[in-house]
Amino acid sequence: MTIQIEDMIIIDALELSNWDRDFLLLLKKGGVTCVHACCGLWENARETLTKLGTWHRFFAEHEDLVMPVHKGEDILKAKASGKIGVVLGAQNTSALEDELALVSVFNDLGVKIMQLTYNNQNLIGSSCYEEQDTGLSRYGKLVVEEMNRVGMVVDLSHVGNRTSLDAIAASSRPVAITHANPDWIYPSKRNKSKELLGELRDNGGVLGVCAYPHLINGPETTLEEFCDMIVRTVDFMGIEHVGIGTDLTLNMSDEFLKWMRMGRWTHKIDYGAGSKDNPSWPEWQSWFKTPADFPNIAMGLANKGMTQEEVSAVMGGNWLRFFTEGFKAEKELEKCVSLI
Amino acid sequence: MTIQIEDMIIIDALELSNWDRDFLLLLKKGGVTCVHACCGLWENARETLTKLGTWHRFFAEHEDLVMPVHKGEDILKAKASGKIGVVLGAQNTSALEDELALVSVFNDLGVKIMQLTYNNQNLIGSSCYEEQDTGLSRYGKLVVEEMNRVGMVVDLSHVGNRTSLDAIAASSRPVAITHANPDWIYPSKRNKSKELLGELRDNGGVLGVCAYPHLINGPETTLEEFCDMIVRTVDFMGIEHVGIGTDLTLNMSDEFLKWMRMGRWTHKIDYGAGSKDNPSWPEWQSWFKTPADFPNIAMGLANKGMTQEEVSAVMGGNWLRFFTEGFKAEKELEKCVSLI
Repeated sequence: MTIQIEDMIIIDALELSNWDRDFLLLLKKGGVTCVHACCGLWENARETLTKLGTWHRFFAEHEDLVMPVHKGEDILKAKASGKIGVVLGAQNTSALEDELALVSVFNDLGVKIMQLTYNNQNLIGSSCYEEQDTGLSRYGKLVVEEMNRVGMVVDLSHVGNRTSLDAIAASSRPVAITHANPDWIYPSKRNKSKELLGELRDNGGVLGVCAYPHLINGPETTLEEFCDMIVRTVDFMGIEHVGIGTDLTLNMSDEFLKWMRMGRWTHKIDYGAGSKDNPSWPEWQSWFKTPADFPNIAMGLANKGMTQEEVSAVMGGNWLRFFTEGFKAEKELEKCVSLI
Repeated sequence: MTIQIEDMIIIDALELSNWDRDFLLLLKKGGVTCVHACCGLWENARETLTKLGTWHRFFAEHEDLVMPVHKGEDILKAKASGKIGVVLGAQNTSALEDELALVSVFNDLGVKIMQLTYNNQNLIGSSCYEEQDTGLSRYGKLVVEEMNRVGMVVDLSHVGNRTSLDAIAASSRPVAITHANPDWIYPSKRNKSKELLGELRDNGGVLGVCAYPHLINGPETTLEEFCDMIVRTVDFMGIEHVGIGTDLTLNMSDEFLKWMRMGRWTHKIDYGAGSKDNPSWPEWQSWFKTPADFPNIAMGLANKGMTQEEVSAVMGGNWLRFFTEGFKAEKELEKCVSLI
């Protein structure tokens, strides 16, 4: 079965790679239109400004190849101009500290996605690695409400099960899991339960299935197995609720790995999704070494019998729809309703 | 002589008042369309985020009366909708700390004007109160260049004479003195020399003449004297280069006055533009107690023989033109040129 991928809008709902010009060229080669890029893990408000300043320089220095995405139409502009659109997001809420008003401030700075917790319990809730998940805190509920108001997408990828269910219940708008897999297909604390993915679907959310080796069956996982997982996930969630979030970590240093997993919260080694036997950056699958390999996934889905429209929805169409709505301020949504 | 003020766009190029709903209603009563409001004095980057968060709440809670201004057309929108447009600006560069990339970050947050120094020497240059003004530092030159690039207006109101002359020379774009007076009319360290105002004019800048009692002849200064100063300033600089920047400080606390003058840089009392005999907030002139008194200035200028067009230029037309151009990124200017 052949499919046409040139016209597709391919969106990767998370990459944590070393963004340089070569990386942009790999994305372009892979036909990628838009990437959600991580601009913060453990960084507080001040440190996040420095990270954003670095992104501003990157955008200015490579403006022939890349542009920031603040709203859905920016993704269409990126596609039309052959540039890579970048949605900045934080994989934690450390940047907000204990200050509710900073949701709106960072939203203005183009941080359009925030994961409520990274691998730890924080002011808002618990992660998938905590022994006890006490659910969404009082502050957490207010943060979700404020994110709903300004149009910043709630991401639950590393968040604990109970906090995630609470967040979906608290949110007046659909939420995202940008990078995780069903845990009944690939068991892992980081992957998600049927209960949670059912609630995500019923509330209009999207799941980005994840190619991170530790969240599937390691680098030996075949493309067919990966695409089989996608087909089964689509069977459970419906074609409109599944996208891709590779979690690609290309050319990142061991120093960064240590920062990512241990931040400043521990002096003992913490392996995150890794393990004592597999402590370093994982080796990636032969069919997805760089973003230039994106067409492999599209072809793999077609080989599983998906139609052009179905492949298109999973490769980016669903994220395009979700981000276009999700990045709007609540006020803009009301405007649309009042026009009816 | 009568003039028509309803259609005028009145712009105040600096107010440091206690912004609440009552204050917005006074501005509306005075026919004011747009105000440059101070969002920082000694606050560092992190503290400035908190100030901006407070402004975001203010904008959200009073959105029927006020709106943020990021570009010239926002001022026209404010006029059309009968709202007060607010340009946020910092009266210091403390928010930038030593980090060049933060110019672009704070510009994205709508901080569209920055005064290079407040009353002290800083990383960028010297203030009008320093014994020695060593001019614009190496970092200062880079900051001016970056402000030029992103479209953040350079303000020299409290800046020392030599640093100001250096900044005008370093800037590829016109700069502003939002609130000061000619020192040959009202002698004061805070007022400006003929040399400086001549350079400002020759480089396309605008001066906002200032009603702050300490920068004129105290609260006894009559409206006629104030308007006489405006006429003489226009004679020297030309009608296109003079606007208003009242520096109004309505309903501000003594605690704030202390913070404004002393920040964290001294434990000894510092009087700023005040003095030992006049240490508190100054009493204001009978003809300018609140922003509802703006029409008095327009009438005063008409009584001095200015035409409708001339009054209009001084009351806001010049700032409208200057801000519309000044808030554009350099890239947007190039676009205009290439269209010719």
